[in-house]
Amino acid sequence: MISIDKELEFELGEITRRTHDLNIPVMIIIEGAPASGKSRLSNALYMSLDAKYTDFIATRPPREADLRYPFLHRYWYHLPKDGDINIHFRSWYSQLIEYKDYRIKRNINADFKQIEDDMRNFEKTLTDNGYEILKFYINTDKEVRERHLQKLKNNPVLKWKAEEFQSRLQHHDYDLEMEHFLMDETVCPWTRIDFHNKEEAANTLYSSIIKQLKIRIKREQENKPQIDGMFQRDFKTGLFTFDFDKESIGKNEYKDMLPALQSRMREIQFQLYQAKIPLVLVYEGMDAAGKGGNIKRTRALLDPTGYKNNAIGAPADIELAHHYLWRFAKRTPRSGHIGFFDRSWYGRVLVERIEGFTPASAWQRAYDEINNFEKSLYNSGAIIIKFFLSLDKNEQLERFKERENNPEKRWKITDEDWRNREKWDLYLEASEDMIRKTDTAHAPWKVIPANDKRYARITALRTIIKICEEHLAKADKRV
Amino acid sequence: MISIDKELEFELGEITRRTHDLNIPVMIIIEGAPASGKSRLSNALYMSLDAKYTDFIATRPPREADLRYPFLHRYWYHLPKDGDINIHFRSWYSQLIEYKDYRIKRNINADFKQIEDDMRNFEKTLTDNGYEILKFYINTDKEVRERHLQKLKNNPVLKWKAEEFQSRLQHHDYDLEMEHFLMDETVCPWTRIDFHNKEEAANTLYSSIIKQLKIRIKREQENKPQIDGMFQRDFKTGLFTFDFDKESIGKNEYKDMLPALQSRMREIQFQLYQAKIPLVLVYEGMDAAGKGGNIKRTRALLDPTGYKNNAIGAPADIELAHHYLWRFAKRTPRSGHIGFFDRSWYGRVLVERIEGFTPASAWQRAYDEINNFEKSLYNSGAIIIKFFLSLDKNEQLERFKERENNPEKRWKITDEDWRNREKWDLYLEASEDMIRKTDTAHAPWKVIPANDKRYARITALRTIIKICEEHLAKADKRV
Repeated sequence: MISIDKELEFELGEITRRTHDLNIPVMIIIEGAPASGKSRLSNALYMSLDAKYTDFIATRPPREADLRYPFLHRYWYHLPKDGDINIHFRSWYSQLIEYKDYRIKRNINADFKQIEDDMRNFEKTLTDNGYEILKFYINTDKEVRERHLQKLKNNPVLKWKAEEFQSRLQHHDYDLEMEHFLMDETVCPWTRIDFHNKEEAANTLYSSIIKQLKIRIKREQENKPQIDGMFQRDFKTGLFTFDFDKESIGKNEYKDMLPALQSRMREIQFQLYQAKIPLVLVYEGMDAAGKGGNIKRTRALLDPTGYKNNAIGAPADIELAHHYLWRFAKRTPRSGHIGFFDRSWYGRVLVERIEGFTPASAWQRAYDEINNFEKSLYNSGAIIIKFFLSLDKNEQLERFKERENNPEKRWKITDEDWRNREKWDLYLEASEDMIRKTDTAHAPWKVIPANDKRYARITALRTIIKICEEHLAKADKRV
Repeated sequence: MISIDKELEFELGEITRRTHDLNIPVMIIIEGAPASGKSRLSNALYMSLDAKYTDFIATRPPREADLRYPFLHRYWYHLPKDGDINIHFRSWYSQLIEYKDYRIKRNINADFKQIEDDMRNFEKTLTDNGYEILKFYINTDKEVRERHLQKLKNNPVLKWKAEEFQSRLQHHDYDLEMEHFLMDETVCPWTRIDFHNKEEAANTLYSSIIKQLKIRIKREQENKPQIDGMFQRDFKTGLFTFDFDKESIGKNEYKDMLPALQSRMREIQFQLYQAKIPLVLVYEGMDAAGKGGNIKRTRALLDPTGYKNNAIGAPADIELAHHYLWRFAKRTPRSGHIGFFDRSWYGRVLVERIEGFTPASAWQRAYDEINNFEKSLYNSGAIIIKFFLSLDKNEQLERFKERENNPEKRWKITDEDWRNREKWDLYLEASEDMIRKTDTAHAPWKVIPANDKRYARITALRTIIKICEEHLAKADKRV
């Protein structure tokens, strides 16, 4: 057991009660080779922090179930909420080293260098959005490690643990891999702790956390950023300039085409399942553009055990207390599954910008954050397709009226829809900015004129089928 | 694709918007043999309900990761919150049939008959606490199934699915097993749906849901239960009658004893890990009885990757919107891990009773519910030990004063502690009732006089070690 300096422990208690009260989420990362003494240090730290808002997250070697999700999924999933503290015992760094060692390529659509970028972007978007990430590397020389191992080996009950450590130490040069990461000072720099003497090591760890949190708390007092949607005075759309009348499909033609596309979509679902490829389908667009109905036509023949339909509304309290991408990252489909998003993370640059829910600096930063987030899903094997269903203003009015007059549809229309309609031009500008800034090769936008619902449904289905077929053909070649 | 009667679909929409508004959580269970047509029915239902508050939960054959948790864990975990709807595609019934078929005994401390009891108790505590469970069994004769299978087999992309179905059909007689469950009308009766014609089957499913929810909504208007803690006027304790002075350990003696017990505790942790036995440790007791410090002494040498310390405070909004056991069931340790609970589910019959947060009928029912909950953890392999640290009233006053006067401890004491102290006798009576009613063979209470912290710590450690050693010896014999 490590005996902790009482004064330091009290000071750490005080400062983390402050970060808790200030709603600052803190992530403390502890890396170090096996048998480096980091278990004992981490346990001491775990015991010194208030269990009401501290969690301990260990990264174990990836198992079958982990491999079904994107590389960073478990870290998104376990993100601390505002004011909470996570101790990460081993982290995405250890995980990447293990992916490399075991040559896990199954859900990697990229080389490991790109996963490193994902990790860097992950840390950046967290710190940019208020998370405090403290990274520690426990450095232990071979002699000390040997002593730790010998101690374990001498106990018949613990011997297997020593053997596990040794096999891991032989398997890879964790230290060497870590040296590479330790040099990266671009996002959250590392603090090295030399583990010669356990009490000294603990003192360094505690002092360093206290020091870094003090700096953070001081920064917290600075003035708040401005909140401003920042729109042009006389915006003219360059994107939403369809000849809506041209894009339509007759009723009979539609009835002829739909069933075959739906059957093919069902086959695509099974093929993706076999190829272990997750599919992310995002639907944005004006109110009453027909997103739900469009999604339903695609779902019609799918196996419901292999997809989720995520209808996104206003965030709940617990969601507001996390990074804005948290609630979506949690719901990304696992390998071979389909995730529909009826509205999505793009709310950040649409409603949040327009209604002024989010400071300008935050929603402006979000374009890059979202691109990086989608890139990380792509890197972990996903196909991502984003639809924007575009309606013209008159057609929306017709649909609103129809909803009001039809008792079976009346529940679909609320005062909020009418209020949003008053901001039509702002939505148009925000949507156009969004599409221009987040239309990427790995996650393209498909803007569909949606005055004619039949045309929009057939076009979406065809687009999904075509893109999935291309990916499946590529995946076939790889095998 | 099943074409759904538009009127029925609208009526279903109306009634589920009502249950949503009334905060009624609904679970719709759909069982049926492979290739019975239940996928299509479930998908139709999934599409007819509002995605904003509907989730689709499929029970697949248990995998390695599932087997590390108690039998009912995934259903507790995915419990709908108030106003939400879960469609359970296959459920705990299918899961039990598969446990039986594959003879999964690993985390079963009991025979399957007892798991059936756990399932019945699970349904009962949910319905007693406001959940609406609708159970459907899709009955399809062999000829229709054969037709479904043949259709799959004819499509090269879907052929493997047909083969999977067939191997499952050969493996076990699902229908026969289900017949047994279908006869049980004690908790939530089943509705059988004959799948000859898919449209007819859908009509029956939709009508039945509508009918059952109508009844429920009507019942909802009835008058609310009384809220009353119901205490005796002149309660005299029969339990908390220690000679506190007798139970103490000197400082030096303590220092001699503690390290060996802590080392042994570390070994126990590793032994439990190897034997895949989860350990649940509950700590209740008066304010300032020393629960946290007691737990810390037990944690001191543990490997932090193998335990969680759950400090339980007032429930968050999202927790209040679920069955009261949800937040604890989610945190039950997985196999080989230790879960400490610094306060626990017993809040239901302590603070909730005393402060009148919960109607009398609900907290009175909770004794049985908690016993059944703990029994289900035990049946799934857990060791459960519950400590009640008992303080006398004067000693508490001393500790409160010490906390107020010591700047390092001042944060530990709040007005609430003083308010609770005023209700000392009520807490005593509620605690005594609790211990008498929930002291079971599978989850015993250990009441420890805690005026002397050293005595309480040594006693708790010794108790844990002893009980675990007994279980481990039994587990050894089984292997």
